[in-house]
Amino acid sequence: MSSNLRVDGARLVSRLMALAAIGATPEGGCRRLALSDEDRQGRDWLVAEMTALGLEVKIDAIGNIVGILKGREEGPAVILGSHIDTVGTGGRYDGALGVVAGVEVLATLRDAGHVPKRDLAVIAFTNEEGARFHPDMLGSYVWAGGMSVEAAHAELDAEGAVLGTELRRIGYEGPERPGFLPAHAYLELHIEQGPVLENEGGGLGAVTGIQAICWLELTLKGRPSHAGTTPMAYRKDPGLAAARINVYANDLTRAIPGQLANSGVIRVQPANVNVVPETVVMTLDLRNPDDAALARAEAAVRGYCAEIAARHGIEIAFRDLARFPATPFTETLIATVEQSAAELGLPIRRIISGAGHDAQMMSRICPTAMVFIPSIGGLSHNPAEFSTPDDIASGANVLLNAAWRAANA
Amino acid sequence: MSSNLRVDGARLVSRLMALAAIGATPEGGCRRLALSDEDRQGRDWLVAEMTALGLEVKIDAIGNIVGILKGREEGPAVILGSHIDTVGTGGRYDGALGVVAGVEVLATLRDAGHVPKRDLAVIAFTNEEGARFHPDMLGSYVWAGGMSVEAAHAELDAEGAVLGTELRRIGYEGPERPGFLPAHAYLELHIEQGPVLENEGGGLGAVTGIQAICWLELTLKGRPSHAGTTPMAYRKDPGLAAARINVYANDLTRAIPGQLANSGVIRVQPANVNVVPETVVMTLDLRNPDDAALARAEAAVRGYCAEIAARHGIEIAFRDLARFPATPFTETLIATVEQSAAELGLPIRRIISGAGHDAQMMSRICPTAMVFIPSIGGLSHNPAEFSTPDDIASGANVLLNAAWRAANA
Repeated sequence: MSSNLRVDGARLVSRLMALAAIGATPEGGCRRLALSDEDRQGRDWLVAEMTALGLEVKIDAIGNIVGILKGREEGPAVILGSHIDTVGTGGRYDGALGVVAGVEVLATLRDAGHVPKRDLAVIAFTNEEGARFHPDMLGSYVWAGGMSVEAAHAELDAEGAVLGTELRRIGYEGPERPGFLPAHAYLELHIEQGPVLENEGGGLGAVTGIQAICWLELTLKGRPSHAGTTPMAYRKDPGLAAARINVYANDLTRAIPGQLANSGVIRVQPANVNVVPETVVMTLDLRNPDDAALARAEAAVRGYCAEIAARHGIEIAFRDLARFPATPFTETLIATVEQSAAELGLPIRRIISGAGHDAQMMSRICPTAMVFIPSIGGLSHNPAEFSTPDDIASGANVLLNAAWRAANA
Repeated sequence: MSSNLRVDGARLVSRLMALAAIGATPEGGCRRLALSDEDRQGRDWLVAEMTALGLEVKIDAIGNIVGILKGREEGPAVILGSHIDTVGTGGRYDGALGVVAGVEVLATLRDAGHVPKRDLAVIAFTNEEGARFHPDMLGSYVWAGGMSVEAAHAELDAEGAVLGTELRRIGYEGPERPGFLPAHAYLELHIEQGPVLENEGGGLGAVTGIQAICWLELTLKGRPSHAGTTPMAYRKDPGLAAARINVYANDLTRAIPGQLANSGVIRVQPANVNVVPETVVMTLDLRNPDDAALARAEAAVRGYCAEIAARHGIEIAFRDLARFPATPFTETLIATVEQSAAELGLPIRRIISGAGHDAQMMSRICPTAMVFIPSIGGLSHNPAEFSTPDDIASGANVLLNAAWRAANA
């Protein structure tokens, strides 16, 4: 392949907007919850695009849609992918970009008559967001063998709808076994969903992996009392304890490299102006690219909680909400992404992914890397989510270049 | 009067329990919301008790019930009082004690044939709790001339019931003008509703006044962002800011004498584990016996909020929920309470009231003081509210002694 080969940026954005019109919301975003009617329409559109390009289109038993451009030799394929389902108040780029750019990459190669050594495939994975069915990244999880098709089909949404039934209802329970296409490598283009690239002057990201996550729910029990008649020394205030823990966890992020902390949920009972709270439920979202560092952070928070419980005379119970180790991507493939950008003259920097992606699951079975493009304002899961056409074309060209390298390696 | 005269403690507790049986709850507490059927039954019981004692019973236009023991001379009366309405999950002592003890004091004097120089009266004020109609302390507020009968009658409860209509429905819109009985002094016996007396070794309280109150509602607006993809430095987290303000307000209570602080309400939006909050609404209940000290505390909190808003890049809007200056009681009458206890050999200490009482309103029109007895565990507005029969008798004896002194001064 000539290094002068480029995707058609205008065509790519035009395809993205065609997909965005399906499930479009008045606010300018998208609502295509997994296995909804809108998801079906999005899938139908994607299958039609793939078919029109002459790709071999296959659907597996969990609804993953696979479009294959045959290579010169038999053997494992280089897979490009992401998802087209969205959260309830989603944007136009999260997930859709990776799928549509994958299609554009295959279209560019086919139009130019370039046939790779290995098969090149694009996959749109089912239910990545987890906004309708648990767990998130379900389609790639099943593809990678982490969950059985039967277990996945049995998942229920909040209204009690069964995943398998919904899959059949929209006509996307396919005949293929998930994972039927052996993978030589997996590459995913995605928006950053954060502000780092934009704030560092733009440019692309060579994603080094997904950081480790620890989600804790703390229930703090104190003693309700009258805020006028109870001297400070007699109070057992779980609201104050929760506040100190929030401050501590945030201050800790300055002491432990790479550490993030968020207390997103704080529920106070009985919630009266003049009553010292009885119970507070709070969550902590702790993340770090390094498992050991995250373990240190969690231990520090738990130690501080014990100290605070003793100081304020309250009880603190812990519940694990989620816990995932760090997922490092494949160094050789990260380097391929960097080299591809360099060859194209595009600035790129290494970056850790703060959010989960299908690449996290694919890394269980094959060498994996990702390319990020800037998200304007760091916005995502938001109708105002936006990435520039230039960044979209740049990201897709790096994907094209890296995919070509991997498919001929 | 001989200083050997004492109330009949057993009879007093027996009367209290008779009243507690009206609106009794399965948990052992009382529910006699103002102008409810239970309140009417409580009022009927009280009027019957007063009538049986030979008191002159009068009802005013806001439903305050007045029982008068005539003195030897014409002129302003010494008034004892409190209320018999309760909060929804009330106890047996809050309010009821002061009314029933007042009746017991008059019964003791009458039985002993002691006729004071001045009239002695007991008043049960309407809707002290404010649990059904706003404002709280409504009956004494109207009595003291702070609010017109017409305005009070127009108040609505949460279901839209009109106070005046409810008053007529239960048969307690009386012919008297509120305040018809000129007051020489006002004395109120009440449970402490806090843990101070019990924790200081028991004994009674000579209440020096009601502390000043400042209730603030703060609305903190930040920027919602992804807790995994947004570096700490880019966040505008109103939850963290609220936590810092809570900690600051609490720490401030150690720097400003007499200062209390409580953040009883904290509401976080959107309340997802992995989303940095967008908006937090929190309340601050600041109290101090000294108006100037409370003003310093409020100024310090507002100054800190400005600093925090700038540091975290958020906006903080303030709303006043309530604001009352301190109500000092009358030094000579506080001293009378202390002397009465000393004469009876009962330990007593000066104490500030953390909560509002009818005495707060009566202090607008006459010399006023209060007597507190310990609340076991500091509990109040709780079915488990409890004070010992010994403390009840002691408190009533101090009330008897102080009332006799005031009525003959």
